[in-house]
Amino acid sequence: MQLRIPGPTPCPPRVLEAMTRQMINHRGKDFAEILQSTTGLLQRFFNTKNDVYILTASGTGGMEAAVVNTLSPGDPVLAVTTGYFGERLATIASTYGAQVTRLDFPWGQPADPHAVSKALQKDPSIKAVFMVHNETSTGLTNPLAQLCQVVKEFDKLLVVDGISSMGSLEFKVDEWGIDVAITASQKGWMAPPGLAMASFSPRAWEAHARATMPRFYWDLALAKRFLDKGQTPFTPAVSTLYAMLAALELMDEEGQQSIIDRHQRVADAVRQGVKRLGLSLLPPEEFASNTVSAVLVPQGVDAKQLQGLMAQQGVILSGGQGALEGSTFRIGHLGWVTVEDAQIVLSVLESVLPRAGSAREAS
Amino acid sequence: MQLRIPGPTPCPPRVLEAMTRQMINHRGKDFAEILQSTTGLLQRFFNTKNDVYILTASGTGGMEAAVVNTLSPGDPVLAVTTGYFGERLATIASTYGAQVTRLDFPWGQPADPHAVSKALQKDPSIKAVFMVHNETSTGLTNPLAQLCQVVKEFDKLLVVDGISSMGSLEFKVDEWGIDVAITASQKGWMAPPGLAMASFSPRAWEAHARATMPRFYWDLALAKRFLDKGQTPFTPAVSTLYAMLAALELMDEEGQQSIIDRHQRVADAVRQGVKRLGLSLLPPEEFASNTVSAVLVPQGVDAKQLQGLMAQQGVILSGGQGALEGSTFRIGHLGWVTVEDAQIVLSVLESVLPRAGSAREAS
Repeated sequence: MQLRIPGPTPCPPRVLEAMTRQMINHRGKDFAEILQSTTGLLQRFFNTKNDVYILTASGTGGMEAAVVNTLSPGDPVLAVTTGYFGERLATIASTYGAQVTRLDFPWGQPADPHAVSKALQKDPSIKAVFMVHNETSTGLTNPLAQLCQVVKEFDKLLVVDGISSMGSLEFKVDEWGIDVAITASQKGWMAPPGLAMASFSPRAWEAHARATMPRFYWDLALAKRFLDKGQTPFTPAVSTLYAMLAALELMDEEGQQSIIDRHQRVADAVRQGVKRLGLSLLPPEEFASNTVSAVLVPQGVDAKQLQGLMAQQGVILSGGQGALEGSTFRIGHLGWVTVEDAQIVLSVLESVLPRAGSAREAS
Repeated sequence: MQLRIPGPTPCPPRVLEAMTRQMINHRGKDFAEILQSTTGLLQRFFNTKNDVYILTASGTGGMEAAVVNTLSPGDPVLAVTTGYFGERLATIASTYGAQVTRLDFPWGQPADPHAVSKALQKDPSIKAVFMVHNETSTGLTNPLAQLCQVVKEFDKLLVVDGISSMGSLEFKVDEWGIDVAITASQKGWMAPPGLAMASFSPRAWEAHARATMPRFYWDLALAKRFLDKGQTPFTPAVSTLYAMLAALELMDEEGQQSIIDRHQRVADAVRQGVKRLGLSLLPPEEFASNTVSAVLVPQGVDAKQLQGLMAQQGVILSGGQGALEGSTFRIGHLGWVTVEDAQIVLSVLESVLPRAGSAREAS
């Protein structure tokens, strides 16, 4: 089986085996060691000295935590959107009463640092900027380093959704000045879903002190108080944490740069293979993501049928998301993945493509 | 090892093994079958025809979901508290702006249906009543059937925290008229932590339609829309769900009444054993919980030292919670537990008790 969706991603055997460990007391010494080791390795992969908190939640829970821990109702926020997940961040902020100005780029196009600069110039009241590093819905990686530089020039609080990039792509929390960075266990981290992880800078803590959005489960002040004694405020997903630590140890053995390079090689293989089959990616190649490829469905091909035929051969792909349903399909290539895996996916794609959709012969 | 804290509870081998299964597509057919089977079994154990939703969160996340899905800021709520978790529910409701009237009973004493009746008579504006079935912090089971009857006489929305009772004690959602019932995977359900479960009645849906507290991650309307197609709105904790289904299948084999009876037998053994050692429970025996026993620390005994000595013999107990720290210790006996387990715990307790605290000999 090749599970090639952009998360959950396959888990290495050592990660799955880690979950056969029996429950332990989440208020005891053994748990404290696991939590502290996991947090320490996450800080290394986040490239940060900031606190890193582990929440029992999906990535979306991490997004919500980022919002309610830094803002008050009425706070002006700039939400830079390039797809489904950028819109989700904007929606969450609005839901809690932030005054959201959206800077929307067409799906498949990257965020333009100059446009962000102009938007910030135009409205000096803006307090925080929200953006997505790697837009899973469009298979696009935004030029995060440049975007961060602009936001920092304007001295704004910066919240970045790194859910499908962190651990797989270059991501430098401290160097780039990211105040809140969010990711989730089931993406490049090779662990099962169930944990959201967020780093929180000193500047984010200043914002927290003034932020009045209601928060209890997501309150990172509680998380901080408990982390200091090696605990979480509420019962954590112990088994998923066993898995996460095992995965981080594997990642540490491979090394951060090697993992980034491997994702580059795998993505290159996918992109070359896709082109060889006469297919095109949604985003411009320069911004195509190294963790997920959004491929345009060629005329006459039925996306659902294509996914079904691939699945019959044991290759599970994702369909298009939101507005892209039917017009794209997506290949996830993040976490536990090699160039050989990519080649299997491409071979199967080559073999089933002629059978997906009646109009194929005519195209 | 005897992990005898009131959650996480030990998982049977079949439950742990279930988590060695590889990830699957959470938007695919196999996942839909798992989610639907799990939901169906939960409905059976909740004794309800209401919708049951599974959230990736701790039990506290389920509490927060109960609040934000039914209330608007300013809504008058009666929070009946008998300990730490009753207070938590009240705190969450206040955090989101509900106007909370607290009806506090002394820790270790049950909620009195007559007092609840009086409180509801006194303030007809009250919209919802929040209560805890089994107060984990005090080892007490409230007389839920009678309490529910009172609340229903006054025709109020009824939210019950059944986190440490459901699946282990009698709990009849439909018969007792419980609009929102909340529980969590790591308690009587014999699965790892990471999932909160909530049933939601038609009346709760009516409240939802009017409720304006901000909600996104917890929004059960999203959960409902996705459950109808066998999905969750956000990536679910797939492995924990594998475990939960395996545990529910084991529970189904044993049978609901047999499980309830087993918890009664185990709790009786614990209570008799505790008394035989000259110790006393915090709550009156009539209301002592069948899932967790809160034992008063006798004079001259140091609670921390006692727990440490027990742990050296492989028996992990919990300390007192909140205001009860130091003055009680707790024995969890829910989920995967037998009378034999209880006897091991009691034997070890008997052997270490004389060594816990210098003043023991003098007492």
